[in-house]
Amino acid sequence: MAQDQKKEVVKVEWRIKKEEERAGFAFMWACIVGLGFKLCNFVKKAWELGVNDPRKFIHCLKVGVALSAVSIFYYLKPLYNGVGGNAMWAIMTVVVVFEFTAGATIYKTMNRMCGTSLAGFLALGVHWVASKAGHQWDPIISGVSLFLLASAATFSRFIPTIKARFDYGALIFILTFSLISVSGYRVEELLAMAQQRISTVIVGSLLCIIVSVIVQPVWAGQELFVLVTGNLDKLANSLQGCVAKYFDNSESPAGNDEESHKKLLGYKCVQQSKASEEVMANFARWEPAHGRFNFRHPWRQYLKIGASMRSCASCLDALFGCINSENKSSDDIKKNMSSISMKVGANTASVVRELAITMRNMTRSNKLDILVEEMNGAAQDLRDFLKYPNMVNPTTSHSANGEEVSANIKIPLMDIIQVVTVASLLIEIVARVEDIVKAVEELSDLAQFQLAECEKPKQVHSPNNKISPDQEKDEKDIKILQMV
Amino acid sequence: MAQDQKKEVVKVEWRIKKEEERAGFAFMWACIVGLGFKLCNFVKKAWELGVNDPRKFIHCLKVGVALSAVSIFYYLKPLYNGVGGNAMWAIMTVVVVFEFTAGATIYKTMNRMCGTSLAGFLALGVHWVASKAGHQWDPIISGVSLFLLASAATFSRFIPTIKARFDYGALIFILTFSLISVSGYRVEELLAMAQQRISTVIVGSLLCIIVSVIVQPVWAGQELFVLVTGNLDKLANSLQGCVAKYFDNSESPAGNDEESHKKLLGYKCVQQSKASEEVMANFARWEPAHGRFNFRHPWRQYLKIGASMRSCASCLDALFGCINSENKSSDDIKKNMSSISMKVGANTASVVRELAITMRNMTRSNKLDILVEEMNGAAQDLRDFLKYPNMVNPTTSHSANGEEVSANIKIPLMDIIQVVTVASLLIEIVARVEDIVKAVEELSDLAQFQLAECEKPKQVHSPNNKISPDQEKDEKDIKILQMV
Repeated sequence: MAQDQKKEVVKVEWRIKKEEERAGFAFMWACIVGLGFKLCNFVKKAWELGVNDPRKFIHCLKVGVALSAVSIFYYLKPLYNGVGGNAMWAIMTVVVVFEFTAGATIYKTMNRMCGTSLAGFLALGVHWVASKAGHQWDPIISGVSLFLLASAATFSRFIPTIKARFDYGALIFILTFSLISVSGYRVEELLAMAQQRISTVIVGSLLCIIVSVIVQPVWAGQELFVLVTGNLDKLANSLQGCVAKYFDNSESPAGNDEESHKKLLGYKCVQQSKASEEVMANFARWEPAHGRFNFRHPWRQYLKIGASMRSCASCLDALFGCINSENKSSDDIKKNMSSISMKVGANTASVVRELAITMRNMTRSNKLDILVEEMNGAAQDLRDFLKYPNMVNPTTSHSANGEEVSANIKIPLMDIIQVVTVASLLIEIVARVEDIVKAVEELSDLAQFQLAECEKPKQVHSPNNKISPDQEKDEKDIKILQMV
Repeated sequence: MAQDQKKEVVKVEWRIKKEEERAGFAFMWACIVGLGFKLCNFVKKAWELGVNDPRKFIHCLKVGVALSAVSIFYYLKPLYNGVGGNAMWAIMTVVVVFEFTAGATIYKTMNRMCGTSLAGFLALGVHWVASKAGHQWDPIISGVSLFLLASAATFSRFIPTIKARFDYGALIFILTFSLISVSGYRVEELLAMAQQRISTVIVGSLLCIIVSVIVQPVWAGQELFVLVTGNLDKLANSLQGCVAKYFDNSESPAGNDEESHKKLLGYKCVQQSKASEEVMANFARWEPAHGRFNFRHPWRQYLKIGASMRSCASCLDALFGCINSENKSSDDIKKNMSSISMKVGANTASVVRELAITMRNMTRSNKLDILVEEMNGAAQDLRDFLKYPNMVNPTTSHSANGEEVSANIKIPLMDIIQVVTVASLLIEIVARVEDIVKAVEELSDLAQFQLAECEKPKQVHSPNNKISPDQEKDEKDIKILQMV
């Protein structure tokens, strides 16, 4: 009996153990599968990132090529003498300096070369003074100069103009100066070393510039250009779509719903692109003439265009909020205002699209003035329409004494508030679009756009303008909207 | 006669030469003075930059101290053997890694240490495999592995999650791996070298972390916190100011005009702070517990609060545009709506200010619910007010048959469109402020804010909360507004 019980207990224990083991395995398996799944997902997403913009893959190959090239160069050179040697500086330069856009690469190489040279000369001067001052003063002079110059250069990095153009140069200045002033304390052959160092930095820098500019270059200026013109199109689509969606309740039959919703929210891209625009504009000014852009193309002006677009997008955001708010205007009233408001929306969108075309073709549009006039005319019509209360007063009744009296006491103001707000915001949007027009006209003055040929077919891209994938997507968007 | 003429010519020539010289000198002087003037201006502006935020000066001194310390450390060490030696890596680490905020410094040090170690181990492994494969295969294996790993690491820098957290680490990984795999080709004592290298990097990193965290630390988290709470106040001031300015035409007697205009435009700061918020949030997560913030403080939530504030600021921007537009509503109508609209504005501003106080005190406000209710009540009052057309119908006339007929046919809709738009946007702003409230409540859940004590005096700053100069300025702004 006792033995039976014991057997039973052993059996149960064995079963529990087995189950625990099984649970342990199951848990481990779950973990592994979960991790694998996550990893797969991650790799898939990363791959999609590259597929969506193959230039990213190309950039990686470019970095690999540049690194291999500089390694082979120094491997073959008899000068080579281990890590402490100069090969290191060339490799380091390539790794640190090679960026996605050509502008960023040039910015960094120029800064690196200038920072290294300037710091080298200064450090040599300080070293010379210190050596003349005698053995006792040498460490003090070196130390104090290091402290002062490093602090000053660090402070200069806070100054906005220097931060925008020479941030990296200031960093390299501090680095080179401290390395030399510390090393100079022992090494006497500073001059020869400095010469070798600078020459290796130049070799690395030139290699980077060559690979970056010649092999499938990604120009920061071109990126900025595509971003701003694409945003103009997004703004136009968003604007026209919002107004049409509000007044035209019938669901669009041809358009994909998700697609059209994404297009409606295009203004959000405009609102969020300030930081990228600024980065691109900072790098673009380092780039040589490329494509249709001169060396001193007025990139700053793109920021102004971006700012005026964002101001317009704010209004659109408010409009979007009002459209989605709880208070709805009655359909009758909306129908009354529909055609005139949709005309304002469509005309404004045409102006913005024409601006995008102007920028893409880099020509002064001969249609822009007419379109702006049409837009202002439509806005004036809307204002005139609002001046006479025919909207709140669809039927006029005659009172007993024959006087024409409005019947609109029956229509509460709450019924028209939404549609009035939409109209008012549309008028404000028209005013802000005029600011964009001004900014683009300033650009066409600064960049000396030529007048477009008359009767020239509307050409969205000139043939020598490389189209980025983003751009292509924008184009697709436009086509879809035009179909809708 | 001829001699006289010659003399005359010589005289004239002499005079011309003298004048040219004088002009040359004058030009040179003008250049020098102009340059000097520009330089003075530049230095003055730079100095003001530091005076406005003395932490910038302190940061420069900290960099100087850290650099001097590491120099002395390696100067005193007998290991020291010239620039190629290990001192270089410690100095380089300090220069490259020391950033303004503690979070950025920690981010860079951690990335540098991890990147160096990981690349070191991998390079050693590859080196071992290559050496086993025989002399012939060695360069091929090294080259191919360098190319592949550099490309892969470069690609990883495009992936958003990696870019946000390990961008610098990936760069250092490439750098270390290529240096070792190129050097490894010749140097046999790789292991000892790697150990020394890593130890110097760690020495430099630790020094940076210590100086950055102990001497007057600037916490990225604290910066983010101050930015977001300051923006809440700016939004509140801007909101209340806009509404008050529109409805209350009397110029404020106490307020400085420029000052009050700047305050009205406070919402623009909110619109533009997305990029800084993101940078700060990325760095803040690397920081240890500091002040009242735990290690895992939900910094991401601040971005959500920022986003909902920006959405509110868009509406405010549209409101501001409508207020400044050409169509003015008549004063009678404005007066009619004045008190109710200003109440909405003031209540909304109080809610936003209470949110700022909630965040500053890190306590759940016991007044917030009441304030939100009041705000919603005021918005509902405004809606109700608009429901009955008493605004467009200030006087009712009796027609001949005794029927009450509105007299508002005399008031064109154009006269009320602006005020209706303002009301409508106010209602939309109230809805968006509720989003901010939700985001702040989520924060108080995530960060486990305690309930505020009852009847606690309203405390804008708890005593252990360091106030930045920006913050102080904000406070001044609030005080001025409250005086107004």
